[in-house]
Amino acid sequence: MTDTPRHDGRTPEDLREVRITRNWLDHAEGSVLVEFGRTRVLCAASFTEGVPRWLKGRGTGWVTSEYEMLPRSTNTRSDREARKGKVGGRTHEISRLIGRALRAVIDTKALGENTIVVDCDVLQADGGTRTASITGAYVALVDAVEDARARGLITADAQPLTGSVAAVSVGIVDGRAVCDLDYPEDSTAGTDMNVVMTGDGQYVEVQGTAEGTPFGRGELDTLLGLAETGCAELTRRQHEALAQTARERVR
Amino acid sequence: MTDTPRHDGRTPEDLREVRITRNWLDHAEGSVLVEFGRTRVLCAASFTEGVPRWLKGRGTGWVTSEYEMLPRSTNTRSDREARKGKVGGRTHEISRLIGRALRAVIDTKALGENTIVVDCDVLQADGGTRTASITGAYVALVDAVEDARARGLITADAQPLTGSVAAVSVGIVDGRAVCDLDYPEDSTAGTDMNVVMTGDGQYVEVQGTAEGTPFGRGELDTLLGLAETGCAELTRRQHEALAQTARERVR
Amino acid sequence: MTDTPRHDGRTPEDLREVRITRNWLDHAEGSVLVEFGRTRVLCAASFTEGVPRWLKGRGTGWVTSEYEMLPRSTNTRSDREARKGKVGGRTHEISRLIGRALRAVIDTKALGENTIVVDCDVLQADGGTRTASITGAYVALVDAVEDARARGLITADAQPLTGSVAAVSVGIVDGRAVCDLDYPEDSTAGTDMNVVMTGDGQYVEVQGTAEGTPFGRGELDTLLGLAETGCAELTRRQHEALAQTARERVR
Amino acid sequence: MTDTPRHDGRTPEDLREVRITRNWLDHAEGSVLVEFGRTRVLCAASFTEGVPRWLKGRGTGWVTSEYEMLPRSTNTRSDREARKGKVGGRTHEISRLIGRALRAVIDTKALGENTIVVDCDVLQADGGTRTASITGAYVALVDAVEDARARGLITADAQPLTGSVAAVSVGIVDGRAVCDLDYPEDSTAGTDMNVVMTGDGQYVEVQGTAEGTPFGRGELDTLLGLAETGCAELTRRQHEALAQTARERVR
Amino acid sequence: MTDTPRHDGRTPEDLREVRITRNWLDHAEGSVLVEFGRTRVLCAASFTEGVPRWLKGRGTGWVTSEYEMLPRSTNTRSDREARKGKVGGRTHEISRLIGRALRAVIDTKALGENTIVVDCDVLQADGGTRTASITGAYVALVDAVEDARARGLITADAQPLTGSVAAVSVGIVDGRAVCDLDYPEDSTAGTDMNVVMTGDGQYVEVQGTAEGTPFGRGELDTLLGLAETGCAELTRRQHEALAQTARERVR
Amino acid sequence: MTDTPRHDGRTPEDLREVRITRNWLDHAEGSVLVEFGRTRVLCAASFTEGVPRWLKGRGTGWVTSEYEMLPRSTNTRSDREARKGKVGGRTHEISRLIGRALRAVIDTKALGENTIVVDCDVLQADGGTRTASITGAYVALVDAVEDARARGLITADAQPLTGSVAAVSVGIVDGRAVCDLDYPEDSTAGTDMNVVMTGDGQYVEVQGTAEGTPFGRGELDTLLGLAETGCAELTRRQHEALAQTARERVR
Repeated sequence: MTDTPRHDGRTPEDLREVRITRNWLDHAEGSVLVEFGRTRVLCAASFTEGVPRWLKGRGTGWVTSEYEMLPRSTNTRSDREARKGKVGGRTHEISRLIGRALRAVIDTKALGENTIVVDCDVLQADGGTRTASITGAYVALVDAVEDARARGLITADAQPLTGSVAAVSVGIVDGRAVCDLDYPEDSTAGTDMNVVMTGDGQYVEVQGTAEGTPFGRGELDTLLGLAETGCAELTRRQHEALAQTARERVR
Repeated sequence: MTDTPRHDGRTPEDLREVRITRNWLDHAEGSVLVEFGRTRVLCAASFTEGVPRWLKGRGTGWVTSEYEMLPRSTNTRSDREARKGKVGGRTHEISRLIGRALRAVIDTKALGENTIVVDCDVLQADGGTRTASITGAYVALVDAVEDARARGLITADAQPLTGSVAAVSVGIVDGRAVCDLDYPEDSTAGTDMNVVMTGDGQYVEVQGTAEGTPFGRGELDTLLGLAETGCAELTRRQHEALAQTARERVR
Repeated sequence: MTDTPRHDGRTPEDLREVRITRNWLDHAEGSVLVEFGRTRVLCAASFTEGVPRWLKGRGTGWVTSEYEMLPRSTNTRSDREARKGKVGGRTHEISRLIGRALRAVIDTKALGENTIVVDCDVLQADGGTRTASITGAYVALVDAVEDARARGLITADAQPLTGSVAAVSVGIVDGRAVCDLDYPEDSTAGTDMNVVMTGDGQYVEVQGTAEGTPFGRGELDTLLGLAETGCAELTRRQHEALAQTARERVR
Repeated sequence: MTDTPRHDGRTPEDLREVRITRNWLDHAEGSVLVEFGRTRVLCAASFTEGVPRWLKGRGTGWVTSEYEMLPRSTNTRSDREARKGKVGGRTHEISRLIGRALRAVIDTKALGENTIVVDCDVLQADGGTRTASITGAYVALVDAVEDARARGLITADAQPLTGSVAAVSVGIVDGRAVCDLDYPEDSTAGTDMNVVMTGDGQYVEVQGTAEGTPFGRGELDTLLGLAETGCAELTRRQHEALAQTARERVR
Repeated sequence: MTDTPRHDGRTPEDLREVRITRNWLDHAEGSVLVEFGRTRVLCAASFTEGVPRWLKGRGTGWVTSEYEMLPRSTNTRSDREARKGKVGGRTHEISRLIGRALRAVIDTKALGENTIVVDCDVLQADGGTRTASITGAYVALVDAVEDARARGLITADAQPLTGSVAAVSVGIVDGRAVCDLDYPEDSTAGTDMNVVMTGDGQYVEVQGTAEGTPFGRGELDTLLGLAETGCAELTRRQHEALAQTARERVR
Repeated sequence: MTDTPRHDGRTPEDLREVRITRNWLDHAEGSVLVEFGRTRVLCAASFTEGVPRWLKGRGTGWVTSEYEMLPRSTNTRSDREARKGKVGGRTHEISRLIGRALRAVIDTKALGENTIVVDCDVLQADGGTRTASITGAYVALVDAVEDARARGLITADAQPLTGSVAAVSVGIVDGRAVCDLDYPEDSTAGTDMNVVMTGDGQYVEVQGTAEGTPFGRGELDTLLGLAETGCAELTRRQHEALAQTARERVR
């Protein structure tokens, strides 16, 4: 353990600079450019009437997500998954994680037979792309729901959102537990954990992995504590962003 | 909460009946048929000299895993992924999880430039296929390493295995925390967590998901406790199985 | 030609040890673990109401099969077809062969608009996987039909099965015609023939291939004779297996 | 059984009109437009120096084939396999069959480390496309070998061809065994058999299938007899075609 | 610039020898073997009742095209797109171009809810395969429309064809503008342009590409003039071909 | 023809508002966010040492491009090509067009054995995505070349860029020729043409298509004139953008 600041000057608890820009796109029902430091993800929520075939006639809606990285979002260029003809395991995994996180705060009954797909495209990657995606996607989701309400596609008093959701990464870097790892930290972390929490401090998802040596219960508890603080701060930022009056969406 | 036994008569802490049959196959360097109740997974460890291109020349080995379910392992038949022309997200996710779990107890330097692939094919599924896979794959891995030692492919004193690894699922079913969920429990669980631990009680992976309502820190702690007990018991079973003299492998 | 026994002590006419274990799986409507010596195939028959779109409304059913080898069923590991994103030519060919063999003894009118898919997954391969698959698949098919009858999905007096079907390989090894080749024999055979016959001694399929030198009519006649004897013996084993009372299927 | 002529006036033994047009293409080392009645297949043999990676350094060559049907070769249009993104089972099966047939008359040692691919593209289909393909492919193969010899790519005295090969279909139509079935016959045949034979009357491949009722040994013998006569006639036609002086190939 | 003849003796304005053979196939509703010198394309027009799902109920028809090259149509063999599992960019591009060209002279209302697919398969390639395809496809399209009229699938007075369409390539070769480039010219052309025109001299598509140095407005004008002359001549050839009485189509 | 302004107030010659933001990304060797009105494309140029296998050892470099639209760049969401498992025809076509445009101003000898891939990802689409891509990609390409020079990967006096390149769309909307069509104009245009020109007014590519009625030579000439003016203005904007001092790239 050490008291020296992190490589970018942060304390262990510090998040990177967080920016949430709503309505970054003109067409999407909800859209957010979310930035965790240099990590930059474009979240676009698309609302469509109707549900996938396997859900038809049950009176419930569906929320899902698709995540993908632009080929040059990273330090060296990666091949496009479309060119390779298949979606990679990591991409699938993160898409599914974001979808589960959003569904944790959605009452699909109240949504009616409607579908919202939130696309999270990573424009630039510097660690924490999945947690930034979840945090931004929630805000885009709120805007898409409100847009649907304004257009009469859901009733005025429907409450499809049962809470808010945010996510942060925590990990053990150089023997010290830190919050919101950037890429240099992430690539050297011994343990890496992504935690998704609701705005009222409940857990939606905990995914901890020992990249190097396995970790003990003590470390796990420290990491959970850091994550709780980080998610609470992100929840505050989401509410701030949503408090601003949205500009009109162009159709 | 309730004191009534689980639907199959188990207490919350009870594992299902665990059977670990070594050398179920004649060709593979290590092979195990692992059963957690009616869940039945065939784990085959294949040792090959050499490593994938991106690892060449570093003097380190590679351990990875591929998981797949037979089409009629489940209650209703699923289409084969080979016919669909792509590996599903869940399949990818579990394959990657098993690989990480095994690498947590492998010293790739000591393995030398050799590769071990552990195939985990689910012959019958009744919940817990990924945790059974990890638990069985470890035993198959040990046998493959010993087979390589016997054939002189690794040196007599090399210690590629730095410990043992096992996994169990825990979850909240009907408001009660229980261990090693079968399919009826798993499909109604509010929270579902897979925990991978080393034989000496350290965490390798924690993956908890709120399927329904998010869970609090108290529930999380209870689940972690149950998982610790379950993994300890599985570790004991692995050692028992490995204590028996393996029959000769047919070449 | 020679009088010395085959490499495993068999006479030219001898089958390997044949084992047919019914109800090896709990979920499938019919399931058989069939073993021809060390060749081990899991046959699972899935009965579903309804037929593929192209057959709808004709009052006839459909029986088909899918064959696949586990990656480490063979002496050295093969890549999974799902990972390669396509089904190989050999896999397709054998799947189609098994399907034709089963349909030769099915009256699709009597089956009604129902579908039976028989999955044949090779757990261990030592030659003759396609003939073992056909022989085991027939037994699984009978069990699936009887299960459907018991559940009232076909009428009590429907006779969808018009006979039995079994298959054996024959070939010229070291200049001598032999029956039921194992892998060492198969890989050195000059001519290799798979013969599928009904229980009453009629031909369903004859597939003979000169791997090395072409063969004459005399050799062909000898091989057909051996196949006839072998199929008759396999028919006897199928009837024996079916004569035992099946244990209850778990649902 | 009946004595009335077949629907197109042929006797049971009659082949359809057979035309073998050499050098139908300007670029290919060997090319043949082969016609069995209205069935029309373009066979193009491509000779290239070198062999696939798995054969390198053994001093032996490789001969293979790819078969495909044009989308409107048939009575109703089929989708292109390239658009579907995968090669169908039937296409794979026939490609493999043609390849085996050609390799039966090739001495790969004498071919040296060279590869010949024979593409068989069905321009029009009216039954017997695989047998026409084999019969035409052999002639294209001979021309490609001679072209290679003329260019000095194989030595002047190398004899890569050890014989000739031809194929014909036979089957039971309306209870009568007939030779070289056209599509109307093929689609109603109870039993359908493809037989590949060398020019000196040996069998290379026998593939008989009971489409409807299984067949007995007597029928099998009758069919084999018809096939022998048909293949002998096709062998004669191949020699006639090859006896003509080939026109110069354009480069 | 130079006054010497082109490498094959043509003047800059000369087309290669053009041959349009109607009804080259027996099954297709319209079929043409079109030859521009050694370039040889088989165009098959398939008429089917009904339209793709996205057009249903609008009372309009659909015309589209698929282009593909046989593997040995070219000087050296190319891999089949079906084997590669995907359609290449160039193939897609040309298929789309042919489809647009044909739709430019089709009144989809007058066609009714029917679909015509024109398959253009290149049997031999020597430059200009896309322009030959368009020129031949138009003739096959006319025949398919007339066949549909004869069968009563469109009304006797419907006029789905609003004009004719043909295409030619032009380019700058050795500093000189020439028409209908063959492969040797095409592969050395500095600028290459494909022009699709209606029979009455209007433009449907102009696609000009500077392969080497960019081109000026003067060169562009010269090329457009050459294309106009070439298309007018091709239009004349199409009318000649269509003036002949078509032989009966075999069903 | 009409004198009323276009739907957004522009004259026929007017471009939309053009914005070229350099260094929008931190990792890429060159990156530009280019905006033509609401059309927004992120162009990232990746410089890597070495060339594709088919170019090795010739001492020349390679420049190529990949274009893709984000799923919600458009008014209604489209499926991801990665999920569909294949790249669509339009995507291929535009990727190839951008690549050709860039190579028209690259001296691959001067580039040495290096590769530059320019990814053009459409973040928002409102017509003209391919022309905006080319215009922005050129600027990113210049920055990537200068970055390589600064890092010594190409020599100080190498001049890989032989000129500049820009592109604009022109078309006939409501009977009037206009420049730089937005989506509402594009979707109703009778004729649509994309023109790629060098900075000194030469043509690189002309692609004109009659979407509705074919067009005459007079209209073609008018459109070419408009395109010339538009490209000249875009060339001016590119130079302006490049005149600004680039900020440091983060590594």
